[in-house]
Amino acid sequence: MGGLVQLKERIWNKRRQAKQTKLDIVSEYTDGVVIPTAQIVTVLEKLISSGDKVILEGNNQKQADFLSRSLVQVNPEILHDLHMIMPSVGRTEHLDLFEKGIAKKIDFAYAGTQSLRISQLLEDGLLEIGAIHTYAELYARLMVDLIPNVVLSAGFMADRKGNIYTGSSTEDTPALIEPAAFSDGIVIVQVNELVDDVSELPRVDIPASWVDFVVVADKPFYIEPLFTRDPKHIKPVHILMAMMAIKGIYVKHNVQSLNHGIGFNTTAIELILPTYGESLGLKGKICKNWTLNPHPTLIPAIESGWVESVFCFGSELGMEKYVAARPDIFFTGKDGSMRSNRMMSQMAGQYAIDMFIGATLQIDADGHSSTVTKGRLAGFGGAPNLGHDPRGRRHATPAWLDMRQISTDETATYLARGKKLVVQMVETFQDGGKATFVNRLDAIDVAKKAGMPVAPIMIYGDDVTHLLTEEGIAYLYKARSLQERQEMIAAVAGVTSIGLNHNSATTQRLREEGLVVFPEDLGIRRTDATRELLAAKNIADLVDWSDGLYEPPAKFRSW
Amino acid sequence: MGGLVQLKERIWNKRRQAKQTKLDIVSEYTDGVVIPTAQIVTVLEKLISSGDKVILEGNNQKQADFLSRSLVQVNPEILHDLHMIMPSVGRTEHLDLFEKGIAKKIDFAYAGTQSLRISQLLEDGLLEIGAIHTYAELYARLMVDLIPNVVLSAGFMADRKGNIYTGSSTEDTPALIEPAAFSDGIVIVQVNELVDDVSELPRVDIPASWVDFVVVADKPFYIEPLFTRDPKHIKPVHILMAMMAIKGIYVKHNVQSLNHGIGFNTTAIELILPTYGESLGLKGKICKNWTLNPHPTLIPAIESGWVESVFCFGSELGMEKYVAARPDIFFTGKDGSMRSNRMMSQMAGQYAIDMFIGATLQIDADGHSSTVTKGRLAGFGGAPNLGHDPRGRRHATPAWLDMRQISTDETATYLARGKKLVVQMVETFQDGGKATFVNRLDAIDVAKKAGMPVAPIMIYGDDVTHLLTEEGIAYLYKARSLQERQEMIAAVAGVTSIGLNHNSATTQRLREEGLVVFPEDLGIRRTDATRELLAAKNIADLVDWSDGLYEPPAKFRSW
Repeated sequence: MGGLVQLKERIWNKRRQAKQTKLDIVSEYTDGVVIPTAQIVTVLEKLISSGDKVILEGNNQKQADFLSRSLVQVNPEILHDLHMIMPSVGRTEHLDLFEKGIAKKIDFAYAGTQSLRISQLLEDGLLEIGAIHTYAELYARLMVDLIPNVVLSAGFMADRKGNIYTGSSTEDTPALIEPAAFSDGIVIVQVNELVDDVSELPRVDIPASWVDFVVVADKPFYIEPLFTRDPKHIKPVHILMAMMAIKGIYVKHNVQSLNHGIGFNTTAIELILPTYGESLGLKGKICKNWTLNPHPTLIPAIESGWVESVFCFGSELGMEKYVAARPDIFFTGKDGSMRSNRMMSQMAGQYAIDMFIGATLQIDADGHSSTVTKGRLAGFGGAPNLGHDPRGRRHATPAWLDMRQISTDETATYLARGKKLVVQMVETFQDGGKATFVNRLDAIDVAKKAGMPVAPIMIYGDDVTHLLTEEGIAYLYKARSLQERQEMIAAVAGVTSIGLNHNSATTQRLREEGLVVFPEDLGIRRTDATRELLAAKNIADLVDWSDGLYEPPAKFRSW
Repeated sequence: MGGLVQLKERIWNKRRQAKQTKLDIVSEYTDGVVIPTAQIVTVLEKLISSGDKVILEGNNQKQADFLSRSLVQVNPEILHDLHMIMPSVGRTEHLDLFEKGIAKKIDFAYAGTQSLRISQLLEDGLLEIGAIHTYAELYARLMVDLIPNVVLSAGFMADRKGNIYTGSSTEDTPALIEPAAFSDGIVIVQVNELVDDVSELPRVDIPASWVDFVVVADKPFYIEPLFTRDPKHIKPVHILMAMMAIKGIYVKHNVQSLNHGIGFNTTAIELILPTYGESLGLKGKICKNWTLNPHPTLIPAIESGWVESVFCFGSELGMEKYVAARPDIFFTGKDGSMRSNRMMSQMAGQYAIDMFIGATLQIDADGHSSTVTKGRLAGFGGAPNLGHDPRGRRHATPAWLDMRQISTDETATYLARGKKLVVQMVETFQDGGKATFVNRLDAIDVAKKAGMPVAPIMIYGDDVTHLLTEEGIAYLYKARSLQERQEMIAAVAGVTSIGLNHNSATTQRLREEGLVVFPEDLGIRRTDATRELLAAKNIADLVDWSDGLYEPPAKFRSW
């Protein structure tokens, strides 16, 4: 048995040994698990090795920014060629790491403001992309073929044992720390505050057994109010589309559970539920269970009794007190503060909801869409995971079943699947007169230029069940062929080049067959779509609805 | 603003108030968070209310059986109409709850041995099914529309604050507890052992902040070695199929990361990697990263250096010491013992792996398959989640890309997606001469009888990329039409009724076009497929390979 020989030769705990060696080396700089703030750069240089896979918690909102600002100060002659793993690349120092030669390769999910610079660094040969993921995929790979050596994370408070309180902003932290903590990786968490004993923490979100070091940051971690939309920017066209969404989709298919994107279109839906929705007698009948960040614009719907539950991907600055005061709606701990969890929310948003509705920047004639535009490697975030039909789903809900093709053949009907509703809600033209409907997605050329094998498509056409524009709704799930899907898309694409392809007779037939509806087909008068329908017209109204519990960040205050 | 009026009237912490009332009531029976073993029935009667949604941890392996045996002893006049939520229904008392009128409705994922009785209880009107899910979906709904009131879970040890050490069998515990702990649900964990202080726990898997009560069970929780397959039952036909899998799928598509089912077919693959795979020079080139329970039959491949990592859904009885001695391969904590996590493993298995390969009981002419056979509501477990093409995936690997349809049109190629490899590996006839290929799946009639809207299909035909039988491999991902898929399936379906439909000329053409291969097309001689290729021929050999670290349960010991 050859195995016995190898058994005696091979070392099976290399990672543990390497970690222990590093822990021994830094022990002279640390006070137990506590790294003194001033020592962080030195300690990082000793705990990380060149070539290591390093997770840096850049989240949608929360940023381990003390650690990223510290990592960028290490000596590139000591520490180089790091393989960075980041859910979200959101800060300039994230990419300074590459310019300085500290890091070389990156696997990420979302780039946002740094998307143009990533493209440039790639072109300059200073950065190599492993792959661009959705959040869920990136977390998944941490357990398979991207097992991290080091995690740099962030929380609100820690005790001297290393127990962590993340507060409302748990976000990606558990998903990032668990794979490292159980593979002899090194887990370092920056916190705003250190306490002596676990009893002084409001609660424990990450147990000390999973954490190697904590460090008090020079200032509280950066957090961005990414999901706050000021109702004052909502236009009548958004309200028209919101009315169509409610009548032509939510009620029609009996949508009970859902996720909203962050555009003004879906914000308008949230804000007309207590007015227009109420007038239709829909309260308690539709959209009761949400997977969603704590959008301030959901406050009026919550206060007027539309919402039964909200499970949050992340937090939202200013919503802390409001959320804490509504524990029947939001998921909060014994201490009273919220716990968000992006990994679990992505799972809920993929598998447990009836509908995803969001916007995009470009849609082609087949219905493929992308937010990647010229020169920008923006990444995917969570949208493709929420915005596809999860074919691994097996439980039925009325909305899901409503997408099924009923056949005259009984067996075929039993073998037909329902679908998640995936709704694209876009104006045919965006601000600045840019057409949303295009003949060719910029994503294709971005892929060619960046050497990607597949174009970065956010949502594929065959996953879109509904396309909603100011012109009307195309019920794409009913399309019997690619050609019919194209005709339906053209019918609601307005005066864009795609829309101008439409044939009036065809569109008329599509309307008669119920494949496409215009506002008048739904009994909606365009003139009724006014801002008067908004339950809150500005941020101050939202504060009023919340009885002063919502505390908007300064940039949203105009009073 | 109508909201302000409602704000003052509505109570927003009903769940918290109700919980506090119950905690106050039971305080006379409990010692802090510790429920005395003898008081459990009384306390359950007071902590649970009729109609509550109650999660009972029946896992694939681990069972909160002290709590289930206690729950069945409550007075049905006090406690009735419970809505049970159970990943796995595996014990008789799980269904006794329904016969006694304590529970009324059930949402579950897998039934196994209890599947026949569920059908009977359903027919007798004693049990109502919410839905049958995959594991991932069931966890997902706990955050959306199945928010639990009470969780009954199991761990190895607890301290007097309520910190839990789950040991290797973490399994579903975090997924079940988190939604309750953060929605003012009541979390009760049975443990084998209680210690005074957290410092006496090997590690903390679930922090005390998430737990309300612990109770020492009358005996250690029940755990079943569900994934142990004795190599002595492997037949030459399994080895032939394993050789085809390696040459015709693993190498052909460059499969790096994967999940194996638990049949003897995939066991044979695991056991010929160190022999047949070695002779082909494949070590280090294929199947390096696994998401898998700690299968004992993987030991020889691990010992001979084929395996880089294994992330586990659950544990496997007898594998504890072996796993603990191989921390570079398995995910273990600082304490040295494994942590499994079914929720995260399901995510990894869905999104991060190249291939799922498993068996089934019935396949129809279109390739749809099901393990549901006459009268049995067996449920889905995890297979549909692992065994579908995750259309929300956006990162590419060589194997995934290899499933893409390359077009002469460059744009179409950029818009084409890869696919997860989903391999069905079945003998055309099973033990007892039952045909695997059938004209009509039993699942259809089971659905009709149980009033299910959709037949319980395990894996849909259009998700299957490869069908492997003892006859050959059908590369279904290449099928250009449903008819071609049917022809390819018939070509490898042997002398079943589906196979007899095949046309020899068509099969010949399919072979010439590379759509179907027979062993000889792969250079495999049927006579070479002997048990001599197995790196371990029985359980004792596995123990030898493990240097005595693997300690098989008594029922697998024959020496």
